[in-house]
Amino acid sequence: MTNFQGILDTIYETAKATKNKGEVANYIPELAKIKEDHFGMYLNKLQGEDYFVGEWDIPFSIQSISKVFSLALAFSMLGTKNILTRVDVEPSGNPFNHLSLLEQEEGIPRNPLVNSGAIVIADILVSELKNPKEDFLQFVRDLAHDQSIQFNEKVAASEAKTGYNNFAAANLLKSFNNLNNDVEAILDFYFHQCSIEMNCKQLSDAFFPFANQGSCLKGNPHLNKNQVKRINAIMLTCGFYDEAGEFAFEVGLPGKSGVGGGIVALLPGEFTLTCWSPGLNDKGNSKLGMLALESFTTQTQLSIF
Amino acid sequence: MTNFQGILDTIYETAKATKNKGEVANYIPELAKIKEDHFGMYLNKLQGEDYFVGEWDIPFSIQSISKVFSLALAFSMLGTKNILTRVDVEPSGNPFNHLSLLEQEEGIPRNPLVNSGAIVIADILVSELKNPKEDFLQFVRDLAHDQSIQFNEKVAASEAKTGYNNFAAANLLKSFNNLNNDVEAILDFYFHQCSIEMNCKQLSDAFFPFANQGSCLKGNPHLNKNQVKRINAIMLTCGFYDEAGEFAFEVGLPGKSGVGGGIVALLPGEFTLTCWSPGLNDKGNSKLGMLALESFTTQTQLSIF
Amino acid sequence: MTNFQGILDTIYETAKATKNKGEVANYIPELAKIKEDHFGMYLNKLQGEDYFVGEWDIPFSIQSISKVFSLALAFSMLGTKNILTRVDVEPSGNPFNHLSLLEQEEGIPRNPLVNSGAIVIADILVSELKNPKEDFLQFVRDLAHDQSIQFNEKVAASEAKTGYNNFAAANLLKSFNNLNNDVEAILDFYFHQCSIEMNCKQLSDAFFPFANQGSCLKGNPHLNKNQVKRINAIMLTCGFYDEAGEFAFEVGLPGKSGVGGGIVALLPGEFTLTCWSPGLNDKGNSKLGMLALESFTTQTQLSIF
Amino acid sequence: MTNFQGILDTIYETAKATKNKGEVANYIPELAKIKEDHFGMYLNKLQGEDYFVGEWDIPFSIQSISKVFSLALAFSMLGTKNILTRVDVEPSGNPFNHLSLLEQEEGIPRNPLVNSGAIVIADILVSELKNPKEDFLQFVRDLAHDQSIQFNEKVAASEAKTGYNNFAAANLLKSFNNLNNDVEAILDFYFHQCSIEMNCKQLSDAFFPFANQGSCLKGNPHLNKNQVKRINAIMLTCGFYDEAGEFAFEVGLPGKSGVGGGIVALLPGEFTLTCWSPGLNDKGNSKLGMLALESFTTQTQLSIF
Repeated sequence: MTNFQGILDTIYETAKATKNKGEVANYIPELAKIKEDHFGMYLNKLQGEDYFVGEWDIPFSIQSISKVFSLALAFSMLGTKNILTRVDVEPSGNPFNHLSLLEQEEGIPRNPLVNSGAIVIADILVSELKNPKEDFLQFVRDLAHDQSIQFNEKVAASEAKTGYNNFAAANLLKSFNNLNNDVEAILDFYFHQCSIEMNCKQLSDAFFPFANQGSCLKGNPHLNKNQVKRINAIMLTCGFYDEAGEFAFEVGLPGKSGVGGGIVALLPGEFTLTCWSPGLNDKGNSKLGMLALESFTTQTQLSIF
Repeated sequence: MTNFQGILDTIYETAKATKNKGEVANYIPELAKIKEDHFGMYLNKLQGEDYFVGEWDIPFSIQSISKVFSLALAFSMLGTKNILTRVDVEPSGNPFNHLSLLEQEEGIPRNPLVNSGAIVIADILVSELKNPKEDFLQFVRDLAHDQSIQFNEKVAASEAKTGYNNFAAANLLKSFNNLNNDVEAILDFYFHQCSIEMNCKQLSDAFFPFANQGSCLKGNPHLNKNQVKRINAIMLTCGFYDEAGEFAFEVGLPGKSGVGGGIVALLPGEFTLTCWSPGLNDKGNSKLGMLALESFTTQTQLSIF
Repeated sequence: MTNFQGILDTIYETAKATKNKGEVANYIPELAKIKEDHFGMYLNKLQGEDYFVGEWDIPFSIQSISKVFSLALAFSMLGTKNILTRVDVEPSGNPFNHLSLLEQEEGIPRNPLVNSGAIVIADILVSELKNPKEDFLQFVRDLAHDQSIQFNEKVAASEAKTGYNNFAAANLLKSFNNLNNDVEAILDFYFHQCSIEMNCKQLSDAFFPFANQGSCLKGNPHLNKNQVKRINAIMLTCGFYDEAGEFAFEVGLPGKSGVGGGIVALLPGEFTLTCWSPGLNDKGNSKLGMLALESFTTQTQLSIF
Repeated sequence: MTNFQGILDTIYETAKATKNKGEVANYIPELAKIKEDHFGMYLNKLQGEDYFVGEWDIPFSIQSISKVFSLALAFSMLGTKNILTRVDVEPSGNPFNHLSLLEQEEGIPRNPLVNSGAIVIADILVSELKNPKEDFLQFVRDLAHDQSIQFNEKVAASEAKTGYNNFAAANLLKSFNNLNNDVEAILDFYFHQCSIEMNCKQLSDAFFPFANQGSCLKGNPHLNKNQVKRINAIMLTCGFYDEAGEFAFEVGLPGKSGVGGGIVALLPGEFTLTCWSPGLNDKGNSKLGMLALESFTTQTQLSIF
């Protein structure tokens, strides 16, 4: 029988003892204030107990992890077909030139988990939702069964002020007629979705439907099997910027990272697992988080492959 | 209980009734001679009977599917770490400019399943094997438990004569010092590996180890679990040229296609499945083969996600 | 002795008789209202009479031609060295991906005559000028010795409303810290500079200093020889989008085009020459204007080469 | 009256005193044997005396300078129109990815002075000339009025052995059907043309026709005015790799450099000027040569602009 708690404890000790913990993202001034020595993990098993270690209960900025939630909400409202006319599902593959690819493919983002793709999804939600920001936040709260989850207005404002690259992407999309709403309104929504704060437990709970054929902890259906399969496929091929292949190769689970240092991964039918460590590697993923997940799947021999 | 034979039969009928079967690859003159109306499938279940339909027993040119065999042999001889210094494991992501990416990343191919990456693997095997072509062919025969498998010398010669793009890639790799042997010797090996002819049954048998933790039909270990996991991960993220994301999204299985019209896919612990239909879609994958696999996983609800 | 008037008359007749006059730019709604059958030319010889034909006295939107004036003003205020740290002087060379190159070169535009480069120059002028828009307009009026030259506020407003691509470029520059002022303020200046309306005579007069070692029609020095040489060099290598090489090859004069259909060219020591015809070729340059200048230099055998 | 000898002498003294003379090209083993402290210049005035300084009479490998001769021969045999279907005349603009651009533009090189373009010109000459290598050498000898000019067979062989990047380019061109002869035959010609050895005087003599409307030193016509204009235009926009804009900007003359450390430039109607200094800057042009020509045009105030 696998000793999950023992494995988490070992990973935690190794992480704590690691000297080079990576560098905290500094392009969003509010995020740069976080110390890099936080570390927490939370394992939510579909059957059986949960396991956790370290600072699993401290909320952090989920940032790009929110893209999975917005994609799920868009899929659940419109189905998958209607969305694929405006965003592709291919890995981005190009480490340096993300606007370049968008330009080359005439305004169709490579996938919904790169910034430009998530901005298109944000545009869809701004059109479809009555009160976009409130309704989206409520969706995340419902997935996690936790009504205390909040936006961090300071982080959203900080990114609105300095997020020139996202303004560039949104304007480029607009120039290709792939946005229906105003750039300002879309990015206001987008910066808010990224600013949501959750802890490791809340994230593992909110990702439960992706491991459980669409139904959350309480058994409520949020997505159908078909949508879950597709979201997991996108996470696997596109969830880690230019390190998606590496993560699939070393870890072998669908997952999503954020520059706040969070990583959520899952094994369908088995578990969801969140790790948080704010220091990033040079690809923009949590340095210790990547190592922790690699260690977890190596020790447990659990992966989709 | 899933009616596998019924599902294969239905797919076969639909395929036969489809008018636009795609276009047979014509850049290799020898391959252009094949008619596009062949169609066969072969399902090899780890436990239980095999199922098959149509022309599952006609050999065809496996072409790029051979890259999985060469990667497997390289991993089994050298381990994964030694290979990753010379080839990356990220999806290529760029539909148009494959030499461009190679140039940009200074001679390190994006992954071992694009041509440039497979040429680096070929270089490794030319260095490591005593009789490279013979030893490689024997490896494939052993995986499939079929000593009748052969190179097609005409196809190999045809590609050697017209494969300018591969000569370009190999010379570019050489200019970045990422090939140790002569371009001619490496490409002779590479064109031979691509020219191997197998039928659907032989391919499903040869891929058995990738679904069975490294052990073949007869129970002989060829790869360890760790290597199998990594090969499957690479197939999932990189196995279908610029349609890898689409295949993961619609089908949800690790697999590999070739311009001969073959596709092999697998579900770890469950089955290997080969489809052959020589007409290609505009991304270079078997048109009906892609639809067949999508239909199979939709009807059976079987996928890694 | 060259019969300049005869040459202009012949070019005019040929242009009038040409059926396919190209297409008027439609991405700026205000400009799309112009009819494509205007045609005028104005030759200002340093020594001797002027020659003109057709609608040389109808004002049109100078658009990108204004980039030469803003570059000249920046050079005259700061010298050439201080500007080259923020913008390069190499041809852009890439027909499709202009933001791509900007991204690849980390926010340093290829040259001051591509949009991103002109936006950097606009930023410099917004910083350096007391009343940026007024002072710039005055500079152009002084070059041309014509105080009636005006902005077209409707065109400026039209571009501010729909110029998403320029907003994308400016935000990308800002993300690389290559803009000091607010994007809005810079683009307000930039859209105004582009909206200036001038006729062929006014443009030929305003370009007089570039053919006359820096001194205008009345003999006032505006630039030194060194600056003029460099501006002419940039026009020759970068003045015609992705058709700069073609223009150098076929025409052999420094010059600059705009999407309003204007082209100004010059031969140092000899003349300035403006042509206006609003229909554009597929590279975005005046279709008949390119042919007119080619015909003029072929007939007169006058070029810098 | 300009003191040409004094200017050359000053430039020579400055060059000799410069510590960092750049690095000799080492990718062709035979060329790497040259010492970097050679320096010579030779000015051939159309009217009046010649001026020279330093090691103007030591032959060196002309390398890419030969591309101007091959282009001139192709133009003189076929006219300009027939060549432009197979090679464009636009600056390459992209510092890093030369094969990338070739791939993107489907096998049409950007211009005849990049390697891929010169290989297409070489293919044309291999088709058109009876004894390609001998006839080409004779053409160069005739331009220079010097029958002693020779190929350096060691240099040609050295490049044939290590010129993988050129083999990559040629095979890529071949894959796009833009070469009619065998890659081996074309590159044999190409490596020979590059291996020609000439001294500064011979080069200034051989370029005389480009400054003299097509007629050589002895008055024999080799090209017509139209062809000369176009060759000069291509030199100006494309003659210095990714430093063409910079050379136009700082020097303001048509010219061509080679990795052997030679640079030839010219002012139509006035002079041809060759400088040789084997150390290269990081763009691959002679470091001291670039500075020498900049100094020469600044002091003499002579340029096409």
